[in-house]
Amino acid sequence: MDHRIYDVIHRRRDVRAQFTGEPVPDEVLHRILSAAHAAPSVGLSQPWDFVLVRDTAIREAFHDHVHHEREVFAATLDASAARRFARIKIDGVLESTLSIVVTYDPDRGGPAVLGRHAIADAGLYSVCLAIQNLWLAATAENLGVGWVSFYREPFLGDLLAIPAGVRPLAWLCLGPVTHLETTPDLERHGWRHRRPLRDAVHHDRW
Amino acid sequence: MDHRIYDVIHRRRDVRAQFTGEPVPDEVLHRILSAAHAAPSVGLSQPWDFVLVRDTAIREAFHDHVHHEREVFAATLDASAARRFARIKIDGVLESTLSIVVTYDPDRGGPAVLGRHAIADAGLYSVCLAIQNLWLAATAENLGVGWVSFYREPFLGDLLAIPAGVRPLAWLCLGPVTHLETTPDLERHGWRHRRPLRDAVHHDRW
Repeated sequence: MDHRIYDVIHRRRDVRAQFTGEPVPDEVLHRILSAAHAAPSVGLSQPWDFVLVRDTAIREAFHDHVHHEREVFAATLDASAARRFARIKIDGVLESTLSIVVTYDPDRGGPAVLGRHAIADAGLYSVCLAIQNLWLAATAENLGVGWVSFYREPFLGDLLAIPAGVRPLAWLCLGPVTHLETTPDLERHGWRHRRPLRDAVHHDRW
Repeated sequence: MDHRIYDVIHRRRDVRAQFTGEPVPDEVLHRILSAAHAAPSVGLSQPWDFVLVRDTAIREAFHDHVHHEREVFAATLDASAARRFARIKIDGVLESTLSIVVTYDPDRGGPAVLGRHAIADAGLYSVCLAIQNLWLAATAENLGVGWVSFYREPFLGDLLAIPAGVRPLAWLCLGPVTHLETTPDLERHGWRHRRPLRDAVHHDRW
């Protein structure tokens, strides 16, 4: 296990097919959640919550919903893209050990959240910082994480009895994996290639 | 310098007052930007760009804008909160070595971004994952990062000649620091206390 941060950052993958379903020890899960909870947040609002989903019926219901949404997306593609998409596995909901749904509560720390008056989305951003901490910690623990985003927020809110106003931002599959691929799935399957860093860097002005 | 990921995650702070203004070597900056660029993104869209701002006139113009927005926020507070807010430094724009503005291009990888058809904000989330990679890499390099969010997106877009449709999501001050505080500024100054992790964890349903 290599905990050096650059190694973890570059080794991290978005996992769909490599989950083994083996258990995750409680102390490992606690370290991962503590890492997420140590993220920065606008106005120290810490607007995230974590719903740990192990229940089989809930996971099956979510999986069915995801595969319905897969069809919705597939119907928008031209023939060539549809063929490439057909090869791509989009979730490991049933095979992974558990899932973690990360939510955003816009009322937390309100009404005057320091640093959010001019940028309404700043609370969303905080939750994503927590998600990346979680993802890297899990990678350091030799676990895989797969972010599933083929879902409608109201469906997931109802499924998990999330209070009105709180948004489920991410469904993350988590668990031991056979291995992490060295190339992202979407690149391996010819969906899209990574952009060179130099194209993304500008100086003083765009 | 300790590169172990849990150490970095828990040592990381949002820096305002501790920047020294000393130089950041090019190879260090490259490692940090490469870490950001290695983040996961919806549909492998990599919708981020990084504008490195060193120009003094741009930083002064942004600093003036931030302090105007500080007054806008202060005017919304009751007397007790206003007194606490008055003690809090909100930016290190002029004292830090450079700033990195991270942007979001919703058109990148479009029109059919895999994983975004049901969640319009998924591209924003990707950019935030890159920001957290950047933040942790900088912390590992013993640099400080401070996210300044007292600004209006159209002002910053104009200031940096960012193309229409591209959103500036974050202004990050970056550079060497005298030290990292062990307690977040907003807690040290009595603005808000951190929430226990146990309150944020739910099982199967909220």
